[in-house]
Amino acid sequence: MTDNDQQNYPKFTPISELGEFGLIDRMRSIVGDPEDEDVIAGINDDAAVYRLPDGRVHIITTDALFEKVHFDLAFTPMEYLGFKSISVNVSDIAAMNGRPRYATVSLGIPNNVSVEMIEAFYTGMRKAMDLYGMTLLGGDTCGAHRLSISVTVVGEAAEEDVIYRSGARPGDLICVTGNLGAAYAGLKILLEQHKALQEQGEDYKPDVESFSYVIHRQLIPTARTNVVEDWAKRKIRPNALIDISDGLASEVHHICRMSGVGAHLYGATLPIDLQTREVADYLQEDVDTYALFGGEDYELLFALPEENLDKLEAGTFTVVGEFTEPEEGIVIKTPEGGTVSLQAKGYQHFN
Amino acid sequence: MTDNDQQNYPKFTPISELGEFGLIDRMRSIVGDPEDEDVIAGINDDAAVYRLPDGRVHIITTDALFEKVHFDLAFTPMEYLGFKSISVNVSDIAAMNGRPRYATVSLGIPNNVSVEMIEAFYTGMRKAMDLYGMTLLGGDTCGAHRLSISVTVVGEAAEEDVIYRSGARPGDLICVTGNLGAAYAGLKILLEQHKALQEQGEDYKPDVESFSYVIHRQLIPTARTNVVEDWAKRKIRPNALIDISDGLASEVHHICRMSGVGAHLYGATLPIDLQTREVADYLQEDVDTYALFGGEDYELLFALPEENLDKLEAGTFTVVGEFTEPEEGIVIKTPEGGTVSLQAKGYQHFN
Repeated sequence: MTDNDQQNYPKFTPISELGEFGLIDRMRSIVGDPEDEDVIAGINDDAAVYRLPDGRVHIITTDALFEKVHFDLAFTPMEYLGFKSISVNVSDIAAMNGRPRYATVSLGIPNNVSVEMIEAFYTGMRKAMDLYGMTLLGGDTCGAHRLSISVTVVGEAAEEDVIYRSGARPGDLICVTGNLGAAYAGLKILLEQHKALQEQGEDYKPDVESFSYVIHRQLIPTARTNVVEDWAKRKIRPNALIDISDGLASEVHHICRMSGVGAHLYGATLPIDLQTREVADYLQEDVDTYALFGGEDYELLFALPEENLDKLEAGTFTVVGEFTEPEEGIVIKTPEGGTVSLQAKGYQHFN
Repeated sequence: MTDNDQQNYPKFTPISELGEFGLIDRMRSIVGDPEDEDVIAGINDDAAVYRLPDGRVHIITTDALFEKVHFDLAFTPMEYLGFKSISVNVSDIAAMNGRPRYATVSLGIPNNVSVEMIEAFYTGMRKAMDLYGMTLLGGDTCGAHRLSISVTVVGEAAEEDVIYRSGARPGDLICVTGNLGAAYAGLKILLEQHKALQEQGEDYKPDVESFSYVIHRQLIPTARTNVVEDWAKRKIRPNALIDISDGLASEVHHICRMSGVGAHLYGATLPIDLQTREVADYLQEDVDTYALFGGEDYELLFALPEENLDKLEAGTFTVVGEFTEPEEGIVIKTPEGGTVSLQAKGYQHFN
């Protein structure tokens, strides 16, 4: 091969070299800004928003789950998977302060998946849709080499109610619903037990009971539509909102980038369930890492003006920090009193 | 293993045993009929339809394309694939007599796909969206073992303009736009040339020029939105409408089943391009089989009341038969004058 030949070959840049943000930026420059004046928000947020004729908006989001990437059928019941595939999308609608209405699903089904398994999958989707008060409109099924699930959900809101990632102001409190790190702890336990089962065979009896809370948080998460409804009743509108799908640290970075603010997190206040702590102890790992970087909690992270603090019911959320001027960066105060820069992703032991 | 053990194992029915219609029926019974009164059409048609506040409707459809199932990267340029992934969904919107507006895309990207390839893919999507006058709202990218593309398109129409599969009446003419079988002929040539290239190595020079029309029909199909616009101008509304994605025979069966009618096709009138005939001759196959069962033409099949025939421009469509009373079945008249039952799918040599 001559140098000239080599130049004629197309360039091959691995996706990993560009990173997620880099790839999104490239896509946006190719796709261009929306010219449709009914489009309010496009690629930048949890979901896209477009206007309806009467001041309402529709909110659309799409998320795929791939076998061996997002789930392993060895320890994922199909009914749970159906439920989860709806929940992860509804969570994106909740993250815009919207109410889910419609879903479509596109399934790629390999030969080792039976009719009974697909029925269980649809039963799980049905249960999720009953819970969230929404309708499955249809979908598409075809053959595939591994089970591939792509769900699109359309939600609804009044235009003025939609909350974006970009609205946080310095001084707003950083709040989260529920607790963090449990879904990741559940995944750790499932992987551990799956490995033991493979090594020890049928002699090994997995202990599902002791870890049932975290396992359920991993396999069958619930989107926080109840929080959105509670805010509507209390007439509260946080300044910024995102769902915690990639881990608290990553979501704080998203809000800071889109809002042009910094953030100061208090490590000691991270809400962590007792069972999540037990898993981390058992595996001799740092539980704060689970909470900050674990992902898949599908809780909501929101920027609350301090004067709204007493309008919310205590115990339904936790204040984990404060948004700051951008110059202050994105930092976390450790329980020991030190302050370290918070990375968006990856393992970071801050003791 | 005892009998008792065996009974405790879940039943495994292969999807193939149930068939496509069987699977859809099972899904529908699990999911239930929509309770949302804004939902006009759900799982039964090319796309689902729901009401907006002002008498318009939105039409939503989702279609996935999987590597090694729907396309082979060995002979599919990424830009074409991006274009096609939009077109196949827009075709479903056209098949409801709607106008496409928004798209979302969910990509599963394996390691052997580069940034440059994804850029080419998005360039193709962008070209399709410019052609159809629509907006990409966003999407989701993640890792996968094979390239997986799932696109959702939202279209729009006035409620009274939507055309369903269920409206055909006995006596309506069966009409198709464009010509049939070309996309399948293109696939045949691509597979043939790919095989020759593998066997003969770089000495083999594929003849792309002689077959460029059918290859383009396979790789970069265009949805018939121009036909929908033409009908609007001429104030024509066919009684039933479907796009030809699985082959003419399959689509006629869909219309007959949903409309409760029979169909009488005239084999001699099937519109077939000269290059499609050349491919069939070259491969010593029956070209009518391509046209009836080939699929992926993305032309429109519509039921036209005879009195509307002269409102359409001659040459833009072909009358290929007539819908009949259901007792007459679904039959095709061969060029030799015989009449045979038309199967929904699969190879059927009717000479």
